[in-house]
Amino acid sequence: MKRTEISEYGEFGLIDHLTKGIENVNASTAYGIGDDAAVLDYKGKQTLVTTDMLMEGVHFDLTYVPLKHLGYKAAMVNISDIYAMNGTPRQMTLSVALSKRFSVEDMEDFYAGVLLACQKHGVDLVGGDTTSSLTGLAISITCIGEADKDRIVFRNGAGQNDLICVSGNLGAAYMGLQLLEREKAVYYSDPKNLQEPFSPDFAGKEYILERQLKPEARGDIIEQLDKAGIKPTSMMDISDGLSSELMHLCRQSGTGCSVYEERIPIDYETAVMAEELNMDVYTCALNGGEDYELLFTVPLTDHDKVLQLKDVKIIGHMTRPELGQHLVTRSGQEVELKAQGWQSNL
Amino acid sequence: MKRTEISEYGEFGLIDHLTKGIENVNASTAYGIGDDAAVLDYKGKQTLVTTDMLMEGVHFDLTYVPLKHLGYKAAMVNISDIYAMNGTPRQMTLSVALSKRFSVEDMEDFYAGVLLACQKHGVDLVGGDTTSSLTGLAISITCIGEADKDRIVFRNGAGQNDLICVSGNLGAAYMGLQLLEREKAVYYSDPKNLQEPFSPDFAGKEYILERQLKPEARGDIIEQLDKAGIKPTSMMDISDGLSSELMHLCRQSGTGCSVYEERIPIDYETAVMAEELNMDVYTCALNGGEDYELLFTVPLTDHDKVLQLKDVKIIGHMTRPELGQHLVTRSGQEVELKAQGWQSNL
Repeated sequence: MKRTEISEYGEFGLIDHLTKGIENVNASTAYGIGDDAAVLDYKGKQTLVTTDMLMEGVHFDLTYVPLKHLGYKAAMVNISDIYAMNGTPRQMTLSVALSKRFSVEDMEDFYAGVLLACQKHGVDLVGGDTTSSLTGLAISITCIGEADKDRIVFRNGAGQNDLICVSGNLGAAYMGLQLLEREKAVYYSDPKNLQEPFSPDFAGKEYILERQLKPEARGDIIEQLDKAGIKPTSMMDISDGLSSELMHLCRQSGTGCSVYEERIPIDYETAVMAEELNMDVYTCALNGGEDYELLFTVPLTDHDKVLQLKDVKIIGHMTRPELGQHLVTRSGQEVELKAQGWQSNL
Repeated sequence: MKRTEISEYGEFGLIDHLTKGIENVNASTAYGIGDDAAVLDYKGKQTLVTTDMLMEGVHFDLTYVPLKHLGYKAAMVNISDIYAMNGTPRQMTLSVALSKRFSVEDMEDFYAGVLLACQKHGVDLVGGDTTSSLTGLAISITCIGEADKDRIVFRNGAGQNDLICVSGNLGAAYMGLQLLEREKAVYYSDPKNLQEPFSPDFAGKEYILERQLKPEARGDIIEQLDKAGIKPTSMMDISDGLSSELMHLCRQSGTGCSVYEERIPIDYETAVMAEELNMDVYTCALNGGEDYELLFTVPLTDHDKVLQLKDVKIIGHMTRPELGQHLVTRSGQEVELKAQGWQSNL
């Protein structure tokens, strides 16, 4: 593997190298990389801004996350926040601080991941900062999008009888993380693995791995909602776990909620992995986080429309606030929801 | 000093605590902190976006930078980039990653500094991220502003005979840094300083210290330019040093330049400090960086208008590109400009 030191390029040289050939695809990108600030023109639409910071050792572990995947995921997580407002992501700024451990080729991989995610969702990379760090890698991304004023969906608009919907399935990203952690432990438990090529046992677990390493922001759901003429009353993406996010929606909308355990969508691989690890799969789905699925509420009158949506499930309904936030278990018991929220691990 | 552990609040609790009472002042801030993304409405104006990342040990040294000053400077540096586009800063997002070394009170100080800078320039804090770091403090700020499309000034518009202007004076921030580094070395050279209260020798050096620790973005110059009916042909703020920034303007505008050493504005304290340290004050002014003054060019026809501006000096003129970038020394020699650029030290 070729290794070019960052110092061969210098800060400006590195940025030029990594960003050359970037072509903007959005009419709203009036001016991208190369000045004190980027210039955007939304021509009367509203501007959405979200930002996230990711630190090595806290949010990601480079022993099992390839840099290209890391870039992809870091971008996707921010793109997801714009969709969660019912908006369209358009631009991104990317700041990276890196120690001498990283080479130019490492950064090329990382950028390739970021740019792939951007390309998939029609996002222009319009600026950023590349600088040094004493230890490890730090990433900060800001994603900017647009929406018509009357289409934006906040967390605070749910009504008391609204249906609670969720896209895709839950708990898979968390199970993928458990699998990676298990294989990492196996790897380090035997010193001879450090000398030989190591083949972790991932057979039949590709889906949960992909959910952890390469999450997809659900722009397709936003598109479906628009086509079906549904404007959710509240929405957010599930980054910290269903329980925690439901409590955000309830708190901000001033409602209670009832969610049915048996309705929570879970993939087969997630269930198998949970069983292997002797964990309760619903606990994982409720608290696992990092699925980046959309959680939203719609008025009861949209019930039939929602049933027509692909990959969306109704899992419960909002209630009067004094009823609190509840999970109805498969045995019919009402259990109070708790936002345990695992620490996010990218 | 009271010390409250961050863990007593948790991530969401800490953000709520630090951001409570924040009131937005801009009509363009449709929705601030509290959802997946902030919502801005520029009603037809163009949007400016700039971002910066600052790492402990690389960009700042907490042995002599108080956290409140750090917050103030980190915000100011980004606000300065919006002015450098001839725009008006309006919103900011702030991401912070911090290790267990930092307490809630530390973060209160840091936020107080950020909010003071925002308040001075009418900027709303509309979002961000607070997370953990294994070592030290990492800061990422994105500043967003607005401008009428035909008022934005890029780096690439300078013409071949345009006058080169600079606000304020140069080299002071760098001299302030040298002073702080010197006193730090004195402090650590004597072990008994660690036991006793230490009084560094800053008498008569207040101005250069302030320039290093508490820089001010030159919104006042942008206002003056507007009132005087001057639209610069190119502009940027001086963060890496005059030489380096001049070369950016020349490269992007396709011009050469001649700058006169004797015209470079230098404060008395800067000159005294340079003499004390046996350094050439012009070298410091040309390469020191972190002054956050504005460097801009205007057409020759604006010569008389520029003379009326307060705190602005004409230091040279653009030339044909084949003439290269030159400094004319006090003795009349033409020296080629070099962008040494010191590593930025916040």
